[in-house]
Amino acid sequence: MIGIFDSGVGGMTVAKAIEEALPDFRLIYFGDLAHSPYGSKSRETICRYSRHNTDFLLSHGAKLIVIACNSAASVATREVTDNYPVPVFEVISPAVRLAAATTRQQKIGVIGTRATISSAVYDREIEKILPGSRVFSQACPLLVPLVEEGWINKRETKMILRRYLDPLQRRQVDTLVLGCTHYPLLKHLIQPRIGKQVTVIDSSHAVAEELRLFLEQRPEVAKTLQKDGENLYYVSDVTPSSQKTADFIFNRKIKLLKYEEHSGG
Amino acid sequence: MIGIFDSGVGGMTVAKAIEEALPDFRLIYFGDLAHSPYGSKSRETICRYSRHNTDFLLSHGAKLIVIACNSAASVATREVTDNYPVPVFEVISPAVRLAAATTRQQKIGVIGTRATISSAVYDREIEKILPGSRVFSQACPLLVPLVEEGWINKRETKMILRRYLDPLQRRQVDTLVLGCTHYPLLKHLIQPRIGKQVTVIDSSHAVAEELRLFLEQRPEVAKTLQKDGENLYYVSDVTPSSQKTADFIFNRKIKLLKYEEHSGG
Repeated sequence: MIGIFDSGVGGMTVAKAIEEALPDFRLIYFGDLAHSPYGSKSRETICRYSRHNTDFLLSHGAKLIVIACNSAASVATREVTDNYPVPVFEVISPAVRLAAATTRQQKIGVIGTRATISSAVYDREIEKILPGSRVFSQACPLLVPLVEEGWINKRETKMILRRYLDPLQRRQVDTLVLGCTHYPLLKHLIQPRIGKQVTVIDSSHAVAEELRLFLEQRPEVAKTLQKDGENLYYVSDVTPSSQKTADFIFNRKIKLLKYEEHSGG
Repeated sequence: MIGIFDSGVGGMTVAKAIEEALPDFRLIYFGDLAHSPYGSKSRETICRYSRHNTDFLLSHGAKLIVIACNSAASVATREVTDNYPVPVFEVISPAVRLAAATTRQQKIGVIGTRATISSAVYDREIEKILPGSRVFSQACPLLVPLVEEGWINKRETKMILRRYLDPLQRRQVDTLVLGCTHYPLLKHLIQPRIGKQVTVIDSSHAVAEELRLFLEQRPEVAKTLQKDGENLYYVSDVTPSSQKTADFIFNRKIKLLKYEEHSGG
C-alpha cells in the first residue's frame, strides 16, 4: 500500500489527488487528529509524531510513505528518510519544482502555516533550483481553522484572505504555492484575490504526478502497492468536524477508522 | 503546591487570577501544548490527556488540582475526581454558581469551544441550580486561534464576535458566561457587543474566589500548599506564539519550562 500521513484530515486532498492519478494502487491514510494541528508545534515534537505515524503505516502494510502535511514535510522529512528503508515522498519538493518551472518573472509567493513559513523551507528549496529568484512568503494561521469550521464562503474568510494575500500581490508574484493541504479548499477564493494572471500551484496534484512518474519507472516497487482491497483511512481521534471535512474533501462518505493509541499521550 | 492544568497557555488567565487572590500559595502549572487544542478532540482523548496532566502535577508536588480548561472540565472532571485522592476544582461550577446568582431574568448566555458547548455541561449545571432558567449557548471555535494570533483588536475579530454574539443578544440574555479561558482576553470587545447591561462572567475570577474560600475553611490543606519557592510554569511544547501569549496574559516575562514526554506520542 501507499502510506500517507498528515496531522489531520487536510492531507486527504493529497490522498484524493493520488487516488485520481493512480486508481490501481491501494492507499492507507493516517490522520493524527489526536495531536492536530502540527502547524503551531515545535520541530522536535513534529519529528516525534512523524516517526510515530510512519511506524503505524509501515506496521499496517505500507511500502512507501507520502508526508502529506507541509509542517511535517518542512521539518521532519530527513528524520523519516534517514530512519526508514522505504521511498519517501513529501508535498514540498514537487510543488517547488513545478513553481520553478512555471514562474516567468522569478517572483514566487508561498502561503502556509506558521511552522512551514518559519522553517523557510520553500525559500531554500526554490533558491536551490532557481538561484536568484525572489520568494515572498506569508504565514496564514487562521485559514486552517476557517476551513475546518466550513467557513468556505463567509465574508470574514474573504477579508482575512485579502489581508494575507495583499502583501504578495503588491510584490507582483506571478506564481503562488499553496503550502498547506487545507488551502486547495479555498482556491476558488484565492485565485480571484491574488489575480487571474497568477498561477496557483496545488501541491497535492504536484506530488501525485511525481509519484505516478516514479511508479512508472519502478515497476518492482509498483507491484508491491497494487490494489487488493479498499483504501483505508485511519485517524487517531474521531470528531464531528473531521468527519465533515473528510466527506467534503472527497465529495463522498468516508469511513474513518479509529486507531487506538496505547502509550501515555 | 496548587496544581493547574490546561490544554495550552489560555489557562494562565486562571493561574493569574489565583496568583492574585492567593499570593501566599505556590502554583505549578502544566500547559499541554503538545496536544493543544482540546476543544476539537473527542471525550475519550481529552480524558486520557487529563489523567496524564494530573499524573504530571501530582508527581511534581501538587496537593490540589485545578482543571483550568473548559473542554477538560466539561468532559473529564469525574475522571480526575474519581481517580485521584486530592481536592479537584474546575472552571465550570464556580462560573455557573455566579451566573445563577447574577441573572435577574433567568436568561443566561454561554460561549465556548465546540467541545464545551456540545457537552451541554453549562445547560445541565445551570438547570440544577436554577430550574426553569433558560440557557442560550454558542460555540465560538475561531476565537482561540484569533487570540493566539494576537488579533485582539482586528476588524475581522470584531466581525466574527458580532456573528457569534448576535443570536445571544437577540435572546436578550442578561448574563454571559465566558466558557473558555482565552475569552477574558477579548472581554473589552465582548462587553460592548453583547451590551453594557449584560453581566459578563469571567470563570477565572470565579474559581479563584471559590478556592480562596475553601482554603480559608481548610487550614490543614492550606498549609500543604504554602509558598516555599517560585511558581512553576511547565508546558509539553514550547512555541513562539505560546511564549508571546503567556507574557501577554501575565503582562510580564514568564519562564516556560519544557516537560519532556517519554512515551510514544
